[in-house]
Amino acid sequence: MTYCIAMRLDDGLVFLSDTRTNAGVDNISTYRKLHVFAPAPDRLFVLQSAGNLATTQEVLDRIAHDLAAPDPTGLATVERLYEAALYVGRLSTEVAASHSAALSQVGADGTASFIVGGQVGDEAPDIFMVYPQGNYIRASDDLPYLQIGETKYGKLMLDLAVYARSDIDQAVKMAVSSMISTARANLSVGPPFDLGVYRNGSHALDEGRLHADSPALVELSRAWIEHLVEGAHSLPEITFDDQHREGATPPGH
Amino acid sequence: MTYCIAMRLDDGLVFLSDTRTNAGVDNISTYRKLHVFAPAPDRLFVLQSAGNLATTQEVLDRIAHDLAAPDPTGLATVERLYEAALYVGRLSTEVAASHSAALSQVGADGTASFIVGGQVGDEAPDIFMVYPQGNYIRASDDLPYLQIGETKYGKLMLDLAVYARSDIDQAVKMAVSSMISTARANLSVGPPFDLGVYRNGSHALDEGRLHADSPALVELSRAWIEHLVEGAHSLPEITFDDQHREGATPPGH
Repeated sequence: MTYCIAMRLDDGLVFLSDTRTNAGVDNISTYRKLHVFAPAPDRLFVLQSAGNLATTQEVLDRIAHDLAAPDPTGLATVERLYEAALYVGRLSTEVAASHSAALSQVGADGTASFIVGGQVGDEAPDIFMVYPQGNYIRASDDLPYLQIGETKYGKLMLDLAVYARSDIDQAVKMAVSSMISTARANLSVGPPFDLGVYRNGSHALDEGRLHADSPALVELSRAWIEHLVEGAHSLPEITFDDQHREGATPPGH
Repeated sequence: MTYCIAMRLDDGLVFLSDTRTNAGVDNISTYRKLHVFAPAPDRLFVLQSAGNLATTQEVLDRIAHDLAAPDPTGLATVERLYEAALYVGRLSTEVAASHSAALSQVGADGTASFIVGGQVGDEAPDIFMVYPQGNYIRASDDLPYLQIGETKYGKLMLDLAVYARSDIDQAVKMAVSSMISTARANLSVGPPFDLGVYRNGSHALDEGRLHADSPALVELSRAWIEHLVEGAHSLPEITFDDQHREGATPPGH
């Protein structure tokens, strides 16, 4: 499994990906799932991937191949971000199709999902989710984030980020909180975590890694646990509607 | 979908079930998924159900039929709680098998899962999860709760209940918190919620309903949202490991 988050804020974009891959619980490895392409000073793309690792890697190699050609194409020439999403979707379906006959013989699925985000020229920065079938959706204005992989455990923290009207720094904290919740609940999602922060108009990504023993991760977990336990202990009483008792009459009644 | 929770505390058991059933998003209804059987003063059973509604109802009817017989069997005569779990498991597989040929023709699945909890005589109260195949597991000592249905969104709150060493009253609040998180994220889980509280040795269940507009539900949601937003705003800063920048050189550098 995998867990990748992309968030669109007023002042920029936040990307966070785990690095755990597994082919069965006895075959765990660490691979980057957050990839950056900056083929020209006026454009920056971030790709996050979930699904078949071989497909993901071949898609990345084909993107690099198109960029390295004497006459570069693909991410070097798209004029809009949605064209980058369609381009990645096309490569993804082509790669998956080229292996599907062999993979289906062993019951495997060669498909992959991607998040494509970034900015091209002066166009508004955005984030897209690219389905295994090659089509895409944008993040909505009401819920300006996207998730791929194991999305359920960490949704509360992302909803909270939106509700709390997060700026970029706050959104980073909430994305990491969402990642921690997920990694805690699902062994197939794990550190290190790759974090990318994009500020509108910069065409550059500040990127870094959070290791399992990073003071920032340890401190964030501690702060949440302390705060949640405090919350649990200060909740209002629950009073039933229509209360009644079934079963044995208690002694003395 | 469905969401049912059962928790085993030092001093008793807590049961909480939603009531929403759906056959597609355009066919939503409300059915009880928490059922109580108190066939004698020395025994009390709580059943929670997920899965095929028709199977669930036929299992309940067969339990009632066995209890109403001139010579009652089933829940009236089991000597241990695990025997009740096996009994429910046997009925469940029998009912599902009796309809499987017809159901499989329309691609439907007639299976159901159950939680069986309660107390028989002086035996320790316990909770069991009964699989569609008729076998069962107990809750573990480390994580003394069970979930059936849509289990992922609400797991954090149950983990927190354990971590915060909840007593029964506290566990009720955390179960309801877990239910609210889940109903918020998944439309197929919804109020009213049926709550049952069992105190060890009582052989009786305090039972009641929480409606969507119950002051207790509204107040609990408000308390959590306020507390979580406060938590989000007081989180420690995230500092990257290995920070670097990719892409265009920022102006002035």
